[in-house]
Amino acid sequence: MKNFTIVGGGLVGALQSVFLAQRGFRVDLFERRPDIRNADIYQGRSINLAVSNRAWKALRKVGAEETIREIAIPMYKRTMHDIHGNLTFQPYGKEGEAIYSVSRGELNRTLLQIADKYEQTTMHFDARCANIDLENKTAYFKNDITGEEMSHVYEHLIGTDGAFSAVRHRLMFNERFDYSQDYIDHGYKELHIEANEDGSHKMDPNTLHIWPREDFMLIALPNIDGSFTCTLFLGWEGKVSFQSLKTERDILGFFQYYFPDVIPHLPDFMEQFLNHPTSALQTIRCYPWHYKDSVVLMGDAAHAVVPFYGQGMNAGFEDCFVFDQMLDEHLNKFENFFEAFGKSRKPNADSVAELALRNFIEMRDLTADPDFLLQKKIEGWFYQKHPDKWVPLYSMVTFSDFSYEYALQKGDYQNAIMAQVMKMPNLAEKWNSMEVEEKILHLLSHS
Amino acid sequence: MKNFTIVGGGLVGALQSVFLAQRGFRVDLFERRPDIRNADIYQGRSINLAVSNRAWKALRKVGAEETIREIAIPMYKRTMHDIHGNLTFQPYGKEGEAIYSVSRGELNRTLLQIADKYEQTTMHFDARCANIDLENKTAYFKNDITGEEMSHVYEHLIGTDGAFSAVRHRLMFNERFDYSQDYIDHGYKELHIEANEDGSHKMDPNTLHIWPREDFMLIALPNIDGSFTCTLFLGWEGKVSFQSLKTERDILGFFQYYFPDVIPHLPDFMEQFLNHPTSALQTIRCYPWHYKDSVVLMGDAAHAVVPFYGQGMNAGFEDCFVFDQMLDEHLNKFENFFEAFGKSRKPNADSVAELALRNFIEMRDLTADPDFLLQKKIEGWFYQKHPDKWVPLYSMVTFSDFSYEYALQKGDYQNAIMAQVMKMPNLAEKWNSMEVEEKILHLLSHS
Repeated sequence: MKNFTIVGGGLVGALQSVFLAQRGFRVDLFERRPDIRNADIYQGRSINLAVSNRAWKALRKVGAEETIREIAIPMYKRTMHDIHGNLTFQPYGKEGEAIYSVSRGELNRTLLQIADKYEQTTMHFDARCANIDLENKTAYFKNDITGEEMSHVYEHLIGTDGAFSAVRHRLMFNERFDYSQDYIDHGYKELHIEANEDGSHKMDPNTLHIWPREDFMLIALPNIDGSFTCTLFLGWEGKVSFQSLKTERDILGFFQYYFPDVIPHLPDFMEQFLNHPTSALQTIRCYPWHYKDSVVLMGDAAHAVVPFYGQGMNAGFEDCFVFDQMLDEHLNKFENFFEAFGKSRKPNADSVAELALRNFIEMRDLTADPDFLLQKKIEGWFYQKHPDKWVPLYSMVTFSDFSYEYALQKGDYQNAIMAQVMKMPNLAEKWNSMEVEEKILHLLSHS
Repeated sequence: MKNFTIVGGGLVGALQSVFLAQRGFRVDLFERRPDIRNADIYQGRSINLAVSNRAWKALRKVGAEETIREIAIPMYKRTMHDIHGNLTFQPYGKEGEAIYSVSRGELNRTLLQIADKYEQTTMHFDARCANIDLENKTAYFKNDITGEEMSHVYEHLIGTDGAFSAVRHRLMFNERFDYSQDYIDHGYKELHIEANEDGSHKMDPNTLHIWPREDFMLIALPNIDGSFTCTLFLGWEGKVSFQSLKTERDILGFFQYYFPDVIPHLPDFMEQFLNHPTSALQTIRCYPWHYKDSVVLMGDAAHAVVPFYGQGMNAGFEDCFVFDQMLDEHLNKFENFFEAFGKSRKPNADSVAELALRNFIEMRDLTADPDFLLQKKIEGWFYQKHPDKWVPLYSMVTFSDFSYEYALQKGDYQNAIMAQVMKMPNLAEKWNSMEVEEKILHLLSHS
């Protein structure tokens, strides 16, 4: 029977400990922060999460799907708010398909509760990983409040300690460990729309709201308490940017001009804007994800992505699912399992990173473009008619089991076909005609 | 009068301290290692350096050129050794142009001696930078032998502490600091050919010897004591690789088959191969290079490159030269100087990194290709006739003041033209004909 030490009790760490405990392994889970089941967790920056197929699949495998559904709100479409407050809509998938808004804190708390039910699992909070002695398989933890230090000898250590992973930081000093951290030119600031007095939502809760403004955007995701978590993504520098919004007058003018229909829902936007922190967004890539058979990275620790495809947590949970799946084959020959796991996941991690970077442009700019919306409408229509021949990229990523790597490649291929289709004259009038259908079928069979 | 704290007393740190001391600034130089002027510095891994124009220019500006010439050996050409020991030659530049082989240790020692002559300079050895408090401008150093710790308040701190820079490591935790470390699939091992008993060299010393073997290579650079420093660059894994050379029999077979003419010069190759470490090669990129007006990175700390263009140290010395040049304009308005310096150097650092990666393929593979050698011969001939119209890429990088960024772009442009020229029939017989000359002139005026 194997012993696993998990460093990082966030979403992926908590879920991974459930997977391992269900196999009867002994699990020690170490988390830098206090036990969030007892503590106030709001930090003023926590983009809401969108649970989709890959996360549900992993949650289902450990029997946690129903519990999580209770704290999640389905969003069936994007609702775009233009500069005058006019709305347009774009369904995410087929009838009934949705992504689910959930608060990171709620989800984390729930998963820790589930993980804690297994008696072979021991949780250690207020335990920051201070160092790892790879050769002697010993991890050192420190309680930053009491100053207390402890060491822990591990058999297998899993680093699920997020984008600023201490485990990965230790591996970084190994020879031939490739690593990159790349910040984008935009930062983000969270704003909070309160519920109505009767606890209802101030806008349609079953949708993801976007205010696309070309180079920047505001989004809003619903919470179960009737509130919305809004996130403003804006350039650090530039003509309209966090840097350019210096005075209260600048900020007022900015909201009045770009988000007039938000102001009634957000009467204290000025106070929130001034008091909430502005945070940076980065992509983290590294390889290899393992050290011998003793340490492996999963989730954001291995592959942090920008949040624009809503796939960061889904990709992390898929790590857990695939790890569990591959473990079946490796139980009796554990040697090189960590290496095989990283090798199998790395191309998918790189692909979801690329997809996430691209989707920012789609969300902030293209969703306001009639041609783009028409293309998506045609793809959705063709997909309904020929689900064996075409799955829109968003659906492959969000509602299917296709690998991220496959989805990215296939998406590029389909996009090249659609570029041809979009050149057809008078397309808006005949977008769902036999002529368009045959054009796509022809292009599919000749490329 | 300003005070500068330099962290890292390697080549760039030593030269930078001379530049600053010559302006009358107070300089504190901290170096992790003992004073190499008193210590044995050989570590079994120190690829020899090739001093070329950019380094000479910087050395000349501080008056150190002549001193360094005394410890350097000119190499006028590449000498390629084929598998049977047959030699071919490729001049590096025009008549009399050479790159200069120098040992890293000798050069470092000499520069430290020069730096130490200035009374406003204080050198601190055995002082490893353990931490930097950016807000309070305090650097912490530790003597790893005695355990003694000291703190040092700085006004301006320059990080010249190499590829594994502690200063950069501290900046890495700042928001929006982009960073990457990328290892290549080849490692290297140093071997040493002793001088003859009379102190003479066993091969021509005025050349860089290459044994190009497509996927790997051996090189040898002369030392002033009659010896050669050889470096074997070989894949970590693969059919012929460090991993595949497991037994003494493997190693013997490898040398006998690929480097038969080296064995007489290197009778103890087996012992050296088994006992010398195998080291990794990486490219390091980061940005920004500064923190406010208080910290800046230079040399390998900002931009470590693979060694195949012989430009790592040249690029670092050019940093010093440009820093000094830009300082003239910024003396009275120091604000944003570090930012401007990094911004100006970054595209050149990225370009020399790319050039270095590409040159590995040229050295290990193309130098054994008759077509490649013919192309270089044509370029050299055309350059002699039209020096205003064409400078071969190698000459731009090695013997000119053109920026690395310009050289890379212009090199790609010229290479596209040469691809056309190389298609001319019977080129080997007419390579220096008027027809070829006119073809190049025509392509230059029409692209």
